Amino acid sequence: MILECVDKDAQYQIANRLKRMGFDTTFHGTNGVAVIYGLDDLVREDLFHVLPGVKRVIPIKEKQKLASRKSVGRRTVIEIQGRKVGGNSDPFIIAGPCSIESEEQIFSSAKIAKENGAHALRGGAFKPRTSPYEFQGMGLKGLEMLSKVGKEFDLLTVTEVLDLESIHLAAPLIDILQVGARNMQNFELLKQLGKVKNPILLKRGFAASYQDLLYAAEYLIAHGNPNVILCERGIRTFETYTRNTLDLNAVPSLQELTHLPILIDPSHGTGRRSLVLPMARAGIAAGADGIIVEIHPNPDQALTDAQQTIGPEVFRRLMKEVLAIHQAFIKE
Amino acid sequence: MILECVDKDAQYQIANRLKRMGFDTTFHGTNGVAVIYGLDDLVREDLFHVLPGVKRVIPIKEKQKLASRKSVGRRTVIEIQGRKVGGNSDPFIIAGPCSIESEEQIFSSAKIAKENGAHALRGGAFKPRTSPYEFQGMGLKGLEMLSKVGKEFDLLTVTEVLDLESIHLAAPLIDILQVGARNMQNFELLKQLGKVKNPILLKRGFAASYQDLLYAAEYLIAHGNPNVILCERGIRTFETYTRNTLDLNAVPSLQELTHLPILIDPSHGTGRRSLVLPMARAGIAAGADGIIVEIHPNPDQALTDAQQTIGPEVFRRLMKEVLAIHQAFIKE
Amino acid sequence: MILECVDKDAQYQIANRLKRMGFDTTFHGTNGVAVIYGLDDLVREDLFHVLPGVKRVIPIKEKQKLASRKSVGRRTVIEIQGRKVGGNSDPFIIAGPCSIESEEQIFSSAKIAKENGAHALRGGAFKPRTSPYEFQGMGLKGLEMLSKVGKEFDLLTVTEVLDLESIHLAAPLIDILQVGARNMQNFELLKQLGKVKNPILLKRGFAASYQDLLYAAEYLIAHGNPNVILCERGIRTFETYTRNTLDLNAVPSLQELTHLPILIDPSHGTGRRSLVLPMARAGIAAGADGIIVEIHPNPDQALTDAQQTIGPEVFRRLMKEVLAIHQAFIKE
Amino acid sequence: MILECVDKDAQYQIANRLKRMGFDTTFHGTNGVAVIYGLDDLVREDLFHVLPGVKRVIPIKEKQKLASRKSVGRRTVIEIQGRKVGGNSDPFIIAGPCSIESEEQIFSSAKIAKENGAHALRGGAFKPRTSPYEFQGMGLKGLEMLSKVGKEFDLLTVTEVLDLESIHLAAPLIDILQVGARNMQNFELLKQLGKVKNPILLKRGFAASYQDLLYAAEYLIAHGNPNVILCERGIRTFETYTRNTLDLNAVPSLQELTHLPILIDPSHGTGRRSLVLPMARAGIAAGADGIIVEIHPNPDQALTDAQQTIGPEVFRRLMKEVLAIHQAFIKE
Repeated sequence: MILECVDKDAQYQIANRLKRMGFDTTFHGTNGVAVIYGLDDLVREDLFHVLPGVKRVIPIKEKQKLASRKSVGRRTVIEIQGRKVGGNSDPFIIAGPCSIESEEQIFSSAKIAKENGAHALRGGAFKPRTSPYEFQGMGLKGLEMLSKVGKEFDLLTVTEVLDLESIHLAAPLIDILQVGARNMQNFELLKQLGKVKNPILLKRGFAASYQDLLYAAEYLIAHGNPNVILCERGIRTFETYTRNTLDLNAVPSLQELTHLPILIDPSHGTGRRSLVLPMARAGIAAGADGIIVEIHPNPDQALTDAQQTIGPEVFRRLMKEVLAIHQAFIKE
Repeated sequence: MILECVDKDAQYQIANRLKRMGFDTTFHGTNGVAVIYGLDDLVREDLFHVLPGVKRVIPIKEKQKLASRKSVGRRTVIEIQGRKVGGNSDPFIIAGPCSIESEEQIFSSAKIAKENGAHALRGGAFKPRTSPYEFQGMGLKGLEMLSKVGKEFDLLTVTEVLDLESIHLAAPLIDILQVGARNMQNFELLKQLGKVKNPILLKRGFAASYQDLLYAAEYLIAHGNPNVILCERGIRTFETYTRNTLDLNAVPSLQELTHLPILIDPSHGTGRRSLVLPMARAGIAAGADGIIVEIHPNPDQALTDAQQTIGPEVFRRLMKEVLAIHQAFIKE
Repeated sequence: MILECVDKDAQYQIANRLKRMGFDTTFHGTNGVAVIYGLDDLVREDLFHVLPGVKRVIPIKEKQKLASRKSVGRRTVIEIQGRKVGGNSDPFIIAGPCSIESEEQIFSSAKIAKENGAHALRGGAFKPRTSPYEFQGMGLKGLEMLSKVGKEFDLLTVTEVLDLESIHLAAPLIDILQVGARNMQNFELLKQLGKVKNPILLKRGFAASYQDLLYAAEYLIAHGNPNVILCERGIRTFETYTRNTLDLNAVPSLQELTHLPILIDPSHGTGRRSLVLPMARAGIAAGADGIIVEIHPNPDQALTDAQQTIGPEVFRRLMKEVLAIHQAFIKE
Repeated sequence: MILECVDKDAQYQIANRLKRMGFDTTFHGTNGVAVIYGLDDLVREDLFHVLPGVKRVIPIKEKQKLASRKSVGRRTVIEIQGRKVGGNSDPFIIAGPCSIESEEQIFSSAKIAKENGAHALRGGAFKPRTSPYEFQGMGLKGLEMLSKVGKEFDLLTVTEVLDLESIHLAAPLIDILQVGARNMQNFELLKQLGKVKNPILLKRGFAASYQDLLYAAEYLIAHGNPNVILCERGIRTFETYTRNTLDLNAVPSLQELTHLPILIDPSHGTGRRSLVLPMARAGIAAGADGIIVEIHPNPDQALTDAQQTIGPEVFRRLMKEVLAIHQAFIKE
């Protein structure tokens, strides 16, 4: 159950009162909302509106509360320095290399991104590599390059964080912080990211159900950060032709379950360069709010993920087709 | 390896010669092609062109031969009574109820299909039900209804066959015969369907790899039926919100691997009525050659698959949006 | 709901009466049992015992009826020419080559099987091969070899059937007929096998849930053949080191759900020769009623499945260890 | 490639020399071993033994080096305060409640564990819960209880850590630190755990391949902690009857690939109380080096994982049967 309170003080009063009644509460400070849990079927939720300071009672049966579509009613639009993500906005396009490798590389990637209409520049500075012997990223130096080049081209910036240290380094420099698929259920990381101001790009774990993804989002919101953008990036199945199986069912399914915006990642979702363009189109046609895609000035020379990175030509075509698809139907 | 021969007689001569050399051949009669197998790395394929009557030698490393994209070079267009499936044709739309239930039901389904621009009418007369206690279909009576109503509305007809008996009943009455997901590796059924003239709609098994699907297609072609239309209809994954996970990666992946047309089935692929429309759009945007979709005049009263069947309103919108998506990009 | 009737005549009377009441019945002749379906929550099952000729009423909520553990109460023992499968019997061991290749090969396989204490000899005469260009089996000639050698060594015989024709050929010659994983939901095949006297070895499809497997068993029983032996043979997962993932959870899970005996197949379940022995042990320790395993006098020269076939030495050890494991705990 | 050096000084010399040659090295201090990476096919590994201070050269093609079976040759035995894990030792049994709930509860759990012959006591103090609203563990207070009770009963102790803070709290108090399935690819956590002295129990992620698990182990070893115990705890598949699918193929497969000991977790691996006993037996029969199992004095009243927790009676039987199984065959 969610209680919307009139103000902070009312929140505090209610928390005390509920505690005495035996319930736990979590506060979601920005809009005076208390999430009450520990309820069972014996509690008559319809009576909570009589508590002083309660503006509205939202009974929610789903286990996720703040991420639930019911908690808000409409789809959330997240505004980041004037760009809108979600709702009926134009597709939000994040492009860039998998890893930041050098200033030249990130500069030319940004140029390609900007010239073709992307809104944000991605680049990894801390790489969660499966093997300990693979390139682990440029760290702070990479972040500074990304930040500088982002400003130069007026692009928002996106980078993945892995732990407390990388959060502290990235939060002041980079606009959007990304949680990778392997860390989607690293709940301590999520709790820390609840405390930052940056919007979070939360990638679905490759064996996470929709429900699991929403719980992870709930951690972020319940710990104070309501600006969560979900991202479908492929799940593990028996099929080996593709690296992952991009699950586009996730897009309309999640839009039924949550009010948060949803992007798709056709690069990791397929693992094959030739599939990025058609799956980007398909994602937008499924109703996704945008795309995150790996581009590189010379894809064959990328240090990481070369086999799934597209070059300038394909990206130009992708941007054109994705926009045309977006305009071809009415998004709900 | 595939050999293109000048004529039937040359085929025969070559078969004999190859047999003496220790190789097996399969003939693919309609266009004078012989598939040679039992080759190993010792055989110099480049020398086969000197055999008399050989027009062209196509060395193929993949295990599928006739279904392989390389065997043809371009994408195949299957023409059925003037309607084209595949290549750059408009999306081929098959619509209709899961099961044929009555003449009224199939008549009104056909009406909805036709009025909104569908090309073919589907309807199950033999139902491969998971439980032996569920409705098993109307059989021959259903086929006759489907055939009659199809002619009345100038719609092609599609029905699933299960065994020799249902093939014998359906082949003379119905235009396109469907192999269901559960029978995709029923190789005896595939061999029988190699002998009929009707085009085959071959659905991917729900745990079949792309390679498995192509082998199944190869069975059909190698046994004499080149008119194979593939269909992605969802695979089994850990996700339970949807009945299956429609794998749209399959569309561009299969287009790399084979020349055969590929449809998608957003009804079985999602198992939820609300997801049919967005996933139909997504399939076309991924490059699919068409859609097979379950419609019903009163979806809530369908005897089978009610929860994934759409009604007239949604279907109208689907047809409109699918066509708009198709026109929004250049199909390769 | 299952009704146990006093005799055939009572069955007939009840069927008529129930039909007038609007219910469908399926008879399971050998023991006077009628499965009633089409019931909904409005029907008071507790009143059916008043119908004349009804000995016992077994209300069953699960969708499978005759295969359900509740329908019988205890675990079924299937007796085949004096050998027992299921219940508290010793592990039932089926061994032999994947394909019958020659009389010498099947003879020496039988010798190895018999000398080490196996109860039955397997050998494929009709092979459902994924590719149409692979060895398709020796057919009738193979069946005759298998039958002859089985008699010579006093071993039961097991072979896979694919369609009506192979059933007709195999049923008079071979003791146990096998339904392969790819045909588990070939319901027409199951219906035909409901009519034969031979016990059926029913393999789990590689993406079939426990429930799906039980429905397939239900087809066999409902169509007249109560002697069904289930077999877990590996499912498809994301793991690629093994060919399949042998799901041993299936063994105790199925024993909760059904009264039918359950074997495991460590050869197909792993696809690797080195894993056959430990997984055979594990299957018996999980409570399986026996094992079906691929052996060959010279595994490296097997025409099919060489990489998962074990030789005489390993089989000897397997038999010894499997028996020791079986005796090390009390089977429920 | 792994180089075994004569001493620390030789290590240092070689690192410098290799750096000038363009190779990177990672040192694994405890036994003078250098892992060289960045090699390609041009490098003749057989010549490295001529470098001064090199005792032995171990060429390793697999991407994991230190975790690879080849790097050691035999199976590793980890000794913890006199108890042995791995090799030919008796099964190592860890038992205890999912969460530490109170001193009484952990005391009676320890009593049951000890009386039946377990070697270690598990208990969660930091719980990585899927939902933010579920019980998150007792923290330090719980650790202190676990430590105290462990000493009292002469049981080793095991607890899960989640981040730097929980490592700092747990490392001095608890014997074995556990990495949960959700954190298996939390590489920052693994790097931190490379620095502690405690042996690590590393659980397989529920969509991690065997290779992924070995890479995670490699992180731990390469960062300084060679005492890694692997644990199979079930993967995600399409089957819903069980919470996870315990993949026992993993046991003999991993024993081919790595020298590290492997436990199995039949509690999480099945998610059903009734399956814990048979799957524990099956795991040992597959060759596992031990078991970690959830027990509780009153399973039905456990705060977490009640549905998969066994009580004293079943645990007694489990210990007896597991030992009998272990003695019934020769472990390789």
